[in-house]
Amino acid sequence: MNDQKIWTAALIVIGDEILSGRTQDKNIAQVAAWLNVQGIRLAEVRVVADDMDLIAEAVNILRARNDYLFTTGGIGPTHDDITVDAVAAALGLAVTIHPEARAILEQYYATRGGLNEGRLRMARVPDGAELIANRMSGAPGIRIENIYMMAGVPHITAGMLDALTGTLEGGAPLLSATLGAWAPESEIASILRDTEKAHDSCVIGSYPFFRNGTVGANFVVRSTEPHELETCRAALKAALEEAGYAVTDGGI
Amino acid sequence: MNDQKIWTAALIVIGDEILSGRTQDKNIAQVAAWLNVQGIRLAEVRVVADDMDLIAEAVNILRARNDYLFTTGGIGPTHDDITVDAVAAALGLAVTIHPEARAILEQYYATRGGLNEGRLRMARVPDGAELIANRMSGAPGIRIENIYMMAGVPHITAGMLDALTGTLEGGAPLLSATLGAWAPESEIASILRDTEKAHDSCVIGSYPFFRNGTVGANFVVRSTEPHELETCRAALKAALEEAGYAVTDGGI
Repeated sequence: MNDQKIWTAALIVIGDEILSGRTQDKNIAQVAAWLNVQGIRLAEVRVVADDMDLIAEAVNILRARNDYLFTTGGIGPTHDDITVDAVAAALGLAVTIHPEARAILEQYYATRGGLNEGRLRMARVPDGAELIANRMSGAPGIRIENIYMMAGVPHITAGMLDALTGTLEGGAPLLSATLGAWAPESEIASILRDTEKAHDSCVIGSYPFFRNGTVGANFVVRSTEPHELETCRAALKAALEEAGYAVTDGGI
Repeated sequence: MNDQKIWTAALIVIGDEILSGRTQDKNIAQVAAWLNVQGIRLAEVRVVADDMDLIAEAVNILRARNDYLFTTGGIGPTHDDITVDAVAAALGLAVTIHPEARAILEQYYATRGGLNEGRLRMARVPDGAELIANRMSGAPGIRIENIYMMAGVPHITAGMLDALTGTLEGGAPLLSATLGAWAPESEIASILRDTEKAHDSCVIGSYPFFRNGTVGANFVVRSTEPHELETCRAALKAALEEAGYAVTDGGI
């Protein structure tokens, strides 16, 4: 049952504000969760500085070894927004003004002071690109080949992901089932390992926590096969209960 | 004034839970902020799955081109904790039980059910490694060459960073000053670009937001030179005010 194609995506988070610690990234988690629903697995993420060469290098490596490449950040109007230039350089393409993007921006800014040089930057795309609708603000996202350039501001990114929902080919969504127990994971490590080994299509992740002075852990079983997922989940629950732990369905 | 060495670090965030979207990463921001105080710049981050070969590949690339490499995650007691094995493989080293780590774990678990196979996994280190103190729970972090392996649970990571404070050689800390204005960044893009160009040692980041129905942005000036930082900050403030915007020191 593991012979089906696994569709993968990579994500490049672009921006000095993430690397400086000023801004806590929220796009990795939201892109990952959205991709799961599309049947696409987020395989790797890189956070890269606002630097043409570094972005272009990451683009060329990641687009080649994944079905899709997403970027967040660096498509705004200011001098540090260089994602379009970096992607165009990576692909050996010229940067052009996209007529539809220009029209969108003209309309959006008609009542907001009009187009200026900075705003017109947001109509620049690698030659041959398509637009991704932006329902939150004027400037669209951009698709070229298998690369999807999205905004960095999380609620605008969310709108662009929403616009793409159902348009990307994927495989079976990765399903998950969670169990929780007030067990130190170091006490049940062998149960987790043996249960995973006995269920070929499943992987089990263990996520410990410390609350109210007590340690516990949530165990997440993942599989693209609903029946095997349920078999594995039930086996893990039984093994934990046999070891003397109360198990909470859905996690603690 | 730019001839001083810039010390850099990379970070590898290890764990399927981040790539699945289940867990929102908090370590990138906290490691970045801590490094800034040490005078070390976080140059790049990768989020990598729980896979030996992928982790080892990232380790070897990033440790070579940065002064320091940090990892978070994958040093616990369960089967999916493979960071030590992957780093050892990357360095061509054997994995051994560290006697001091074993003693720490024996003491920690003496009143918690004793050492078992899973718990003893947390004493495994690449041959020749040193320990990083863990003030929150038993298992220590691990240093080998320029690689620092930290816990994945953010408050444990924080304790390990605290234990390392002041022990890593760095340069001048990157300083920053923030200004905020209720200005669409697309209206003041040329001011930002021209101000940055006029101040060699400074970079200006622009971080737009949308609140209460109005757009604004914070502008962060960064430099290792306190005097040039202040000159640039003052010039930016004057230019924004001349363009008709009220400017908030420290950001909005």
